Amino acid sequence: MENFEFQNPTKIIFGRGTEEKVGHEVAKYSTNILLHYGGGSIKASGLYERVTASLKAAGVDWIELAGVKPNPRLSLVQEGIKLCKQHKLGLILAVGGGSVIDSAKAIAMGSVIEGDVWDFYLGRGAPVDALPVATVLTIPAAGSESSTGTVITNEEGWLKRAVNSDLIYPRFSILNPELAFTLPAFQVACGIADIMSHLMERYFTNVSHVSFTDHLLEATMKTIIGQAPFVLKTPNDYDAWAEIMWAGTIAHNNLLNTGRVGDWASHDIEHEISGIYDVAHGAGLAVVFPAWMKHVLQHDLNRFVQWAVRVWNVEMDVYNPEAVALIGIHKLEEFFHSIGLGTELSDLGIQGDRIDEMANKATDGDTRTLGNFVKLNEKAVRKILHLAE
Amino acid sequence: MENFEFQNPTKIIFGRGTEEKVGHEVAKYSTNILLHYGGGSIKASGLYERVTASLKAAGVDWIELAGVKPNPRLSLVQEGIKLCKQHKLGLILAVGGGSVIDSAKAIAMGSVIEGDVWDFYLGRGAPVDALPVATVLTIPAAGSESSTGTVITNEEGWLKRAVNSDLIYPRFSILNPELAFTLPAFQVACGIADIMSHLMERYFTNVSHVSFTDHLLEATMKTIIGQAPFVLKTPNDYDAWAEIMWAGTIAHNNLLNTGRVGDWASHDIEHEISGIYDVAHGAGLAVVFPAWMKHVLQHDLNRFVQWAVRVWNVEMDVYNPEAVALIGIHKLEEFFHSIGLGTELSDLGIQGDRIDEMANKATDGDTRTLGNFVKLNEKAVRKILHLAE
Repeated sequence: MENFEFQNPTKIIFGRGTEEKVGHEVAKYSTNILLHYGGGSIKASGLYERVTASLKAAGVDWIELAGVKPNPRLSLVQEGIKLCKQHKLGLILAVGGGSVIDSAKAIAMGSVIEGDVWDFYLGRGAPVDALPVATVLTIPAAGSESSTGTVITNEEGWLKRAVNSDLIYPRFSILNPELAFTLPAFQVACGIADIMSHLMERYFTNVSHVSFTDHLLEATMKTIIGQAPFVLKTPNDYDAWAEIMWAGTIAHNNLLNTGRVGDWASHDIEHEISGIYDVAHGAGLAVVFPAWMKHVLQHDLNRFVQWAVRVWNVEMDVYNPEAVALIGIHKLEEFFHSIGLGTELSDLGIQGDRIDEMANKATDGDTRTLGNFVKLNEKAVRKILHLAE
Repeated sequence: MENFEFQNPTKIIFGRGTEEKVGHEVAKYSTNILLHYGGGSIKASGLYERVTASLKAAGVDWIELAGVKPNPRLSLVQEGIKLCKQHKLGLILAVGGGSVIDSAKAIAMGSVIEGDVWDFYLGRGAPVDALPVATVLTIPAAGSESSTGTVITNEEGWLKRAVNSDLIYPRFSILNPELAFTLPAFQVACGIADIMSHLMERYFTNVSHVSFTDHLLEATMKTIIGQAPFVLKTPNDYDAWAEIMWAGTIAHNNLLNTGRVGDWASHDIEHEISGIYDVAHGAGLAVVFPAWMKHVLQHDLNRFVQWAVRVWNVEMDVYNPEAVALIGIHKLEEFFHSIGLGTELSDLGIQGDRIDEMANKATDGDTRTLGNFVKLNEKAVRKILHLAE
């Protein structure tokens, strides 16, 4: 286990009806805020009404900025920054899923500086301050409701890049599993794939003696695998949604990577795919992850064997560990298929003709490698994308 | 799953050599503090030297209060409160195990009020403020380094009582597994029993649909069971200690009871035993818990079956669930024996002659019940204590 520091300050308010507390909680920070959301779904579901009624009751004024799209765009972030500066807003309330929250975090960092927030995403400097962010989560998936991360797409060149900073942990997040009842099945599946990927990125590590977090990661994967069929079959299954929503937050709140170093190459490769083709992040991950696994399997076969046996209940065969590992990967693919996701690029409507371009962009022209478990150069990324064809 | 709120603000600083950061971290809060510890072990190990050197280097002055005993006493707490008030101290730094930390938390609550801190332990009012507490942990056991709890013994009447308050979450806790290398084997075993008990208290719940936290609790129990033999055989096994130390903190930091209601009767019963006989808390728990399990088994046999199968790898026998559960309890007893603890009152040197008195005191003369999984009256507590004979 490696030395680490861990402190996650996000207050979680979990359960039925908890969105009614939003005004009271927001007012602790500011009475003049940016209300940030996506499209009309929160209006159709009545959530918008309940949130704004709660804000009103707590004496909170707000300016609205709607229109966040999946793979949230820098141009809308810039609009939000302008609004926050112009109206001297004191908090950004994200009502939605990971895209809305990531966009809110970008606005929070950009609103307290003179320069361009995109510089942070390019690795030019790190934020030293940010407006407070709070969330009402509607989609269990990205984990952004209790994480340090934000991923934004710059339409100029379709670059998708991430920032991580302790400054953008949301101050509080309201998690009501009922809000997930109305999600389309495809979005549910993408969320589940995203959560599984956050767990697998952390699981495949070169750090030894990480038994406790191994067990915690396995426990969380088993929860997701066990509960996914219920929410897909019965969209208003509160109990199953509660398990998935809480597991999805813990999957990405930095607890499960304490003392270990995750991989994250699959996320980086997927960012190239969704950056170019604008596919759903979770759908992209379902394609990349099995291919990545097949490519890196021999780097630490034992780790794949442990994962297959403990998470997928593959029977141990000490004389044939590679077969055990491959059955585990096959079970992951079957799981993705069972929730309605494909595991090949063609399932995303993508032909192989831009694989070279994606591999080149992902590695900045073979000048950087991706991942920690195995460091991937341009050629390796190309090979993984071909394995996913 | 029940609605819940969760926010644990304690900053964890984990790993080799991390006690050298203590001065820097303390100085963020105060440069005039109470340094609180137990006996000479931190001087013998050199920890005292390293901590005070770090305080000096950071410009932090301190007043010392040593002498905390296991089952920490109210009289020393009162001394600490007097020192904090007299010298206007701004933080209490606990260097030690759960007893030192619990004592520090009591001092922190008592130093900001005019009245008697013991009133809080008697349930007369709740704290509304407290001095900041920070810790350098030397014993993985109580989980107090990242918890809301403090347990103090009042020598007048040997009453042992607890307070829980968000105000006494330590601001930071330094966890260096190396500090556990020099613990006596008996203390190691007691710590392991305490951690297991924190997990089992949470596991046995009447709340349904708690699959995720079930899995997390099982993961943490499996970690403790798996690593305990290593630290007992090789006291300087850093990697095994790291697993146990981190698991011990997570076992009691409130994450693992999110959405569920734990039992805690075994802790209450043990408090009567250690209040009267001054036995080590963990040693007492190893006696009480198996007896409690045998008494409440039929209340929810399924939960015991799941625990036996998942945590202890007992083979499932659907035609004989009671046998599966009993094998699980037997394996727990075997585990306690394997780490050097007894599971009968006589192993603590206790005869049965004061069982009636303990049962009476624990239930305040049969006016209150203990536990949530099954509510125990005086008669039930007496029966459990007899089962432990």
